[in-house]
Amino acid sequence: MNKSSESISYSTIHTSPDHEDDKFHEECGVVGVWTTQDAASLTALGLHALQHRGQEATGIVTYDGNFHIHRGLGLVGEVFADPQVIAKLPGGIAIGHNRYATTGATQLRNVQPLYGDFEFGGFAVAHNGNLTNAQLLRQSLVRRGCLFQSSTDSEVFIHLIAISLYSNVIDRFIDALKQVQGAYSLVALSKDMLIAARDPLGVRPLILGKLNQNKEKECWVVASETCALSSMGAEFVRDIEPGEVIIINDEGIRSIKPFHNISHRFCIFEYVYFARPDSIIENKSVYIARQKIGAELALENPVEADIVVPVPDSGVPAALGYAKASNIPFELGIIRSHYIGRTFIEPTDQIRNLGVKLKHSTNGSILKDKRVILIDDSIVRGTTSKKIVEMVRAAGAAEVHLRIASPPTRFSCYYGIDTPSKEKLLAHTHDIDEMCKLIGADSLGFISCNGLYKALEEKERNNEKPQYCDACFTGDYPIQLTDHDMNLTQNK
Amino acid sequence: MNKSSESISYSTIHTSPDHEDDKFHEECGVVGVWTTQDAASLTALGLHALQHRGQEATGIVTYDGNFHIHRGLGLVGEVFADPQVIAKLPGGIAIGHNRYATTGATQLRNVQPLYGDFEFGGFAVAHNGNLTNAQLLRQSLVRRGCLFQSSTDSEVFIHLIAISLYSNVIDRFIDALKQVQGAYSLVALSKDMLIAARDPLGVRPLILGKLNQNKEKECWVVASETCALSSMGAEFVRDIEPGEVIIINDEGIRSIKPFHNISHRFCIFEYVYFARPDSIIENKSVYIARQKIGAELALENPVEADIVVPVPDSGVPAALGYAKASNIPFELGIIRSHYIGRTFIEPTDQIRNLGVKLKHSTNGSILKDKRVILIDDSIVRGTTSKKIVEMVRAAGAAEVHLRIASPPTRFSCYYGIDTPSKEKLLAHTHDIDEMCKLIGADSLGFISCNGLYKALEEKERNNEKPQYCDACFTGDYPIQLTDHDMNLTQNK
Amino acid sequence: MNKSSESISYSTIHTSPDHEDDKFHEECGVVGVWTTQDAASLTALGLHALQHRGQEATGIVTYDGNFHIHRGLGLVGEVFADPQVIAKLPGGIAIGHNRYATTGATQLRNVQPLYGDFEFGGFAVAHNGNLTNAQLLRQSLVRRGCLFQSSTDSEVFIHLIAISLYSNVIDRFIDALKQVQGAYSLVALSKDMLIAARDPLGVRPLILGKLNQNKEKECWVVASETCALSSMGAEFVRDIEPGEVIIINDEGIRSIKPFHNISHRFCIFEYVYFARPDSIIENKSVYIARQKIGAELALENPVEADIVVPVPDSGVPAALGYAKASNIPFELGIIRSHYIGRTFIEPTDQIRNLGVKLKHSTNGSILKDKRVILIDDSIVRGTTSKKIVEMVRAAGAAEVHLRIASPPTRFSCYYGIDTPSKEKLLAHTHDIDEMCKLIGADSLGFISCNGLYKALEEKERNNEKPQYCDACFTGDYPIQLTDHDMNLTQNK
Amino acid sequence: MNKSSESISYSTIHTSPDHEDDKFHEECGVVGVWTTQDAASLTALGLHALQHRGQEATGIVTYDGNFHIHRGLGLVGEVFADPQVIAKLPGGIAIGHNRYATTGATQLRNVQPLYGDFEFGGFAVAHNGNLTNAQLLRQSLVRRGCLFQSSTDSEVFIHLIAISLYSNVIDRFIDALKQVQGAYSLVALSKDMLIAARDPLGVRPLILGKLNQNKEKECWVVASETCALSSMGAEFVRDIEPGEVIIINDEGIRSIKPFHNISHRFCIFEYVYFARPDSIIENKSVYIARQKIGAELALENPVEADIVVPVPDSGVPAALGYAKASNIPFELGIIRSHYIGRTFIEPTDQIRNLGVKLKHSTNGSILKDKRVILIDDSIVRGTTSKKIVEMVRAAGAAEVHLRIASPPTRFSCYYGIDTPSKEKLLAHTHDIDEMCKLIGADSLGFISCNGLYKALEEKERNNEKPQYCDACFTGDYPIQLTDHDMNLTQNK
Repeated sequence: MNKSSESISYSTIHTSPDHEDDKFHEECGVVGVWTTQDAASLTALGLHALQHRGQEATGIVTYDGNFHIHRGLGLVGEVFADPQVIAKLPGGIAIGHNRYATTGATQLRNVQPLYGDFEFGGFAVAHNGNLTNAQLLRQSLVRRGCLFQSSTDSEVFIHLIAISLYSNVIDRFIDALKQVQGAYSLVALSKDMLIAARDPLGVRPLILGKLNQNKEKECWVVASETCALSSMGAEFVRDIEPGEVIIINDEGIRSIKPFHNISHRFCIFEYVYFARPDSIIENKSVYIARQKIGAELALENPVEADIVVPVPDSGVPAALGYAKASNIPFELGIIRSHYIGRTFIEPTDQIRNLGVKLKHSTNGSILKDKRVILIDDSIVRGTTSKKIVEMVRAAGAAEVHLRIASPPTRFSCYYGIDTPSKEKLLAHTHDIDEMCKLIGADSLGFISCNGLYKALEEKERNNEKPQYCDACFTGDYPIQLTDHDMNLTQNK
Repeated sequence: MNKSSESISYSTIHTSPDHEDDKFHEECGVVGVWTTQDAASLTALGLHALQHRGQEATGIVTYDGNFHIHRGLGLVGEVFADPQVIAKLPGGIAIGHNRYATTGATQLRNVQPLYGDFEFGGFAVAHNGNLTNAQLLRQSLVRRGCLFQSSTDSEVFIHLIAISLYSNVIDRFIDALKQVQGAYSLVALSKDMLIAARDPLGVRPLILGKLNQNKEKECWVVASETCALSSMGAEFVRDIEPGEVIIINDEGIRSIKPFHNISHRFCIFEYVYFARPDSIIENKSVYIARQKIGAELALENPVEADIVVPVPDSGVPAALGYAKASNIPFELGIIRSHYIGRTFIEPTDQIRNLGVKLKHSTNGSILKDKRVILIDDSIVRGTTSKKIVEMVRAAGAAEVHLRIASPPTRFSCYYGIDTPSKEKLLAHTHDIDEMCKLIGADSLGFISCNGLYKALEEKERNNEKPQYCDACFTGDYPIQLTDHDMNLTQNK
Repeated sequence: MNKSSESISYSTIHTSPDHEDDKFHEECGVVGVWTTQDAASLTALGLHALQHRGQEATGIVTYDGNFHIHRGLGLVGEVFADPQVIAKLPGGIAIGHNRYATTGATQLRNVQPLYGDFEFGGFAVAHNGNLTNAQLLRQSLVRRGCLFQSSTDSEVFIHLIAISLYSNVIDRFIDALKQVQGAYSLVALSKDMLIAARDPLGVRPLILGKLNQNKEKECWVVASETCALSSMGAEFVRDIEPGEVIIINDEGIRSIKPFHNISHRFCIFEYVYFARPDSIIENKSVYIARQKIGAELALENPVEADIVVPVPDSGVPAALGYAKASNIPFELGIIRSHYIGRTFIEPTDQIRNLGVKLKHSTNGSILKDKRVILIDDSIVRGTTSKKIVEMVRAAGAAEVHLRIASPPTRFSCYYGIDTPSKEKLLAHTHDIDEMCKLIGADSLGFISCNGLYKALEEKERNNEKPQYCDACFTGDYPIQLTDHDMNLTQNK
Repeated sequence: MNKSSESISYSTIHTSPDHEDDKFHEECGVVGVWTTQDAASLTALGLHALQHRGQEATGIVTYDGNFHIHRGLGLVGEVFADPQVIAKLPGGIAIGHNRYATTGATQLRNVQPLYGDFEFGGFAVAHNGNLTNAQLLRQSLVRRGCLFQSSTDSEVFIHLIAISLYSNVIDRFIDALKQVQGAYSLVALSKDMLIAARDPLGVRPLILGKLNQNKEKECWVVASETCALSSMGAEFVRDIEPGEVIIINDEGIRSIKPFHNISHRFCIFEYVYFARPDSIIENKSVYIARQKIGAELALENPVEADIVVPVPDSGVPAALGYAKASNIPFELGIIRSHYIGRTFIEPTDQIRNLGVKLKHSTNGSILKDKRVILIDDSIVRGTTSKKIVEMVRAAGAAEVHLRIASPPTRFSCYYGIDTPSKEKLLAHTHDIDEMCKLIGADSLGFISCNGLYKALEEKERNNEKPQYCDACFTGDYPIQLTDHDMNLTQNK
């Protein structure tokens, strides 16, 4: 006897929850599949490869003449583990979504893909990113008589499509895109087409791949990152361009570019932390980029030491780069437990405090009496860094020098990354010396903003027309923060 | 770790599923509570007393400054068993709903109360009944850009309210009522009022009660039947009138009658089977009405026999009436197991065939060599009747005379009762002699339509202006079947 | 992902838990099947029919060359609902068990059938009854080096079999029977035989039936009551005799009577309350016996009144008998909800107090201004009776006369019935007048002990050599209470 | 409503299940805690740190005057996630156990610690290792009348203790130890002492630590590995010696050495793969040992190449050692997903084949056109190695040279490691050239047995009196395989 039960509290619309741990969090990953059969299995495999982009909930919509939806709270490997679940998702076309969310907002009604019954038939959308005028649009739509079923900004898309005066699905979709501001990589499904779209600045990644499973029909996949391709048995074709809309139907694939002002402002933090190291984004290997960042960091922030130790797992590639550039041995001085599931993450302070201890442990025999260079990807609130430095000292390290593979994160992100309000960012309220003291390291160094651009093969940051979105470091927000400026978002 | 998972198939809108067993099924029960605290507990107790009106799903919405919702699949005693669930539903105002639904459509998104964020704030609705122009309205609303979140006809209400041009909540609500056709008993909740409404013919029951728990504030309840009152500790006040809208807010209670043409056409089958025997509807005790039906049945269909045996549990009061009127001893010749849960009800034919055997067993020592009058409330497909007659014969009965406490059910209901299509109703395709042969009884008799009216203290059925809705017996549908006539509903 | 988890506290051996409600509780039901295939399904159907003898846990062991066991907490319809569970129990031979137990002792390790790996192969046992020297034997066995895996008295059987010096399975089994004192109806399974046995007094019921499904092999069933036969499609053969051991193997069926002193002392309370009304025990219909008890009760305790109302469901047959004998109309003045699952039974006082209200409701229209004779089967602590009388008065009854279809229960049972300690039995501490006052009835009457014997077709109780075990009424315990007398059992 | 259900099949005693993936598996981890309070929490933290030694089931027994047990299937973080579970395990003394087991044998009744009610009171045992004469002893014990409740070899211990003729608990315990053959690290709990013991060869690890939380009482912990100490906030004291029995009670700690012939034969494979890299065993850091093995491997098996790539996670330290020794860059050419839970591991061949793909993915940008040295810890069946080599080639590697950080595994382990039968070990049936061809590598090299001893700071393997147990490489079994030689174990 299966019973499901949904508990919903409509008090407020949570847009930015507290951090579970001391990291920025990518909020979503998306997948789309256009083939002849088994689209749900392929989508599940792709979503599994994108699990790092959202671990709280996942969903798939397929079409085989009818629409079929399964959404659930949990990992892809949990929600789609049962072959009977996959069996209830027949068809050769599918879209899927992974979602990051905190306890408060982890409600089934917010799990994507979103679906609606439209005049033209069913339509499903999955969204990675965040809209900066969603609250303003929502107010107008509610005033007009639209009923919202979720508390996500993404729902604005389907209402805009529903009320559009255009008759054609694509025209309605583009009509909706033109009204929203913000960052988005979208996949959508109607009864006769798969649509993929990226915002005019291309803030979030989205790539196109090809499946070779069928000779009579061209089969395509779209996904947030290239790492999804190998698990789906697909080949990389190209990045979807900023401002590009891709339409795949029985007649083939075509590209529309409905926006005038296009400029590349890809999120630089995807290279620093979010993307999986084996992904390739805009022709750059994330793994190699991180090694170069580590090398540049070594150049900018050298220190005499015995070993280079990464904070695992995210600090590893940068630490390898630092070690090579500085010619100091790379050692796994900190071990990370991979048995930490979400089940240990309890909302009590006591367990929160235990958190780091459970997740990381020190390799005393390698740290003892050594001068250690610790490499981490970023500092958010600083609480984790403090504990890690303490642990390394407790294990007998003679000196602990912390080096960070990104500039200080001084500003919140409004484009699809879960960040604390800037007041809670250690780098917003403290200079580097103060941070070093608070964290308890012997020295602290960050890569410079220009250093980061150099590691990404730019000469330097073009301050007139920056090559990336780096608002979390610089406060230079390339897309207007309409809701925020009108005080329509809650203070985090 | 709790995980909930929702599986949705949007292929078609199921309005009338197959029967799980061979009975008509009431589709819903509703409760509303206006007091100062603990509204959720009171509502759960009321819904528990109304469990016979819907066993598949249940939900409660409360308000305490914010709206709180909990909905789940299962019995009231399962979904609201956990004190932590009740604790998450604070406040002194609440509405609740029980739902009957078949496997296919038992989806969390269809579970009521429905909720929407409106311009004027949150609004929740729970509906017992069925709209006969819901599909037509839904088509127009979808065309206008409204997004439907469920496949229930009830959702039409909240969209009509959302798009109404009136500014006042009550005006919008009445505006919506005036556009729908069909049967409805509604309870609704906004941030400052509780609303209850009944359709102009009063097809479904709805009653008003009073809570005496508080001296400083008048506390009210509304519920589908009076049997909910005792479990809530409330007193009966009166039936809500056909076409009446009751509004309860901080200023007290008031009544609006927005419809011109009001006539009483209460569902006569509520007396026959749906309502709980301890309920009182329109001043008539259901239990006494059933005894009178049994007595009238004995008068119209006498037969020489040794014992009167009810098909339990629903046939018991009529059998008592028959036994008294005929002066033949009443005996419990059939025992019903009360441990049959929903868990045994499996979709395989094999288990379906086992169904009756599991549910009923014969009391051989009382049946052996006896001439038996079997009393049941109605015949739907006849499959259960056939098995029961076989069982009673197998237990050694000398003769089996089947007497039915309602006229032959020849027509489907479109007003909130789950019935098979008329082609599947045994009485639609067979006359009484054929039915008797098929069922294998020695004789078969039904109460006449006029006999039923007599038992309900009418002189006879007023064919010009019938006192009740008896469409399932007569095919005389008092409310237009718009969707059905336009072929907008699926053939059952 | 299924996870099961078992929580065990070994502090004490619970033999007699608190009552969940105000009734005596039969502690177990057993089934055995000897056929060629599908023994698990048949056993599940039989156990389902015996659900009233134990609702907390259930288990089945089958043999098809290997032994297969499935045991679980819950109803038969829950634990064996999944066809995959039944599929994992192949074979044509099986035994099964239903268990009643309270929260504290509802532990998986106590769920029967018990199983052990013996020198002669596997052996499984299911026990209905209670041993009166189990603690004494257990002490000796532990001293000898035996490890106990449960806290049930039944485990003593399998250790006695394990250490027996006989080599033959049947000799070992009888060796064990001769060492235990108490009440038992047993079914057991070894690799080549099915065994059924009843204690020398025949306190608990056990019957033999025949399956006609196979022409080449004689197929047999044993079960606690005849009501299990119809749900298994089997025919009644005979009661198993007190002190009889039945052995069924490939060579057929044979009977052994290993005890010298046999006398019939069947539990008279099985007729009063425990057995299902459609069962036949020792050639007497339970339903008819209860009607006769009601008639005798009317004779002994007449009162002028308007209606006879049973406390449902157990009081119904006696009330019918009372009504017929007194010529006062039988009416269903109290309605019992059949949606009460175990989920509402919460250990808080608040919910306990709600208990009766949730389970029973009054039918006001039939009770108002009437002089009511209430019929119940027994009074244990009196708490339920008090509430029922209050409810009936609150519904407007002019007078309430309580009549009880058994003598006052003044003593605890040690033979397999869960009863409170005698200090908690209302009739142990109060005379009938005091009880009447406490309960709040206008008058209170019990059937006399001789009256009960008369209703069971005895001339009177033979005080020299009583025909039944009636220790709960008389304190005349036919089997020595060894553990109790040595203070080896805990005070209840 | 929680329901647990246990499905047991007693057909055969599974001692060695099929591999879920292509690795040897450590079968258990143990923890013991002697302190004043919160022993369950501390034990859970310790077991969590030992999760790599067993992921299928876990259990804790505490004592606070009574014994309290909780055992469940799943990870420590799942079974003990609920604070209410920990709350039901009060007391300052505890033992705990992690268990590895395959699907067939993952039954609750096999989950440790084992518990029994003895003459002297309760006694609980947790066992890491495997007994080689368990079946022989079990036969004798069953013949004697002992009833086994599990299918584990460990249960022999408690029966031997139960039937021992000694009166004292410790004497009984040592009496039992002297009768068993095999490998064992044990923790045990009686009402007044905590016992820890290691077999005379010290095959499995066991260490002693000290808790500083209490000033008035000496507080101790024992655990399989030192990595558990930091998560428990304890300090390392020393390894428990081979053949040593440690007794901790209110009078302090003492050591007994009941065996005459003691020689150190620690399992060399613990250094190669089983132990966590941050553990220190017999004064050697596992992490540094693995680096030295990698360096020795480079010396013995050099090859010209561009990058050294580990098969993560187990191959990483050896690859770092190889890279340093060979001066070839270390690169993370293969990425391992850490979201693979047990939920994806389905018993279908289809999913098994997907296994590797889901778990590992290649980092194409680093592998393309490179000559790659792949480092793995061992080859079992070779299926994983084959897939990994294929993946690396598919990612564009010019050459793939596989180097293995252990000698060829040609023999099964009978001392507590789950291995396939030797016929299924690739190295048992193929020489290195054949293996290389089958796996599809350009070259294949293993470290020699002497090389492995050198890396562990021995001059060479002392063939007269080997310093370690290396039976899986050499077939030189230091403990007699009694059951195996008598054909009492099943062929794997």
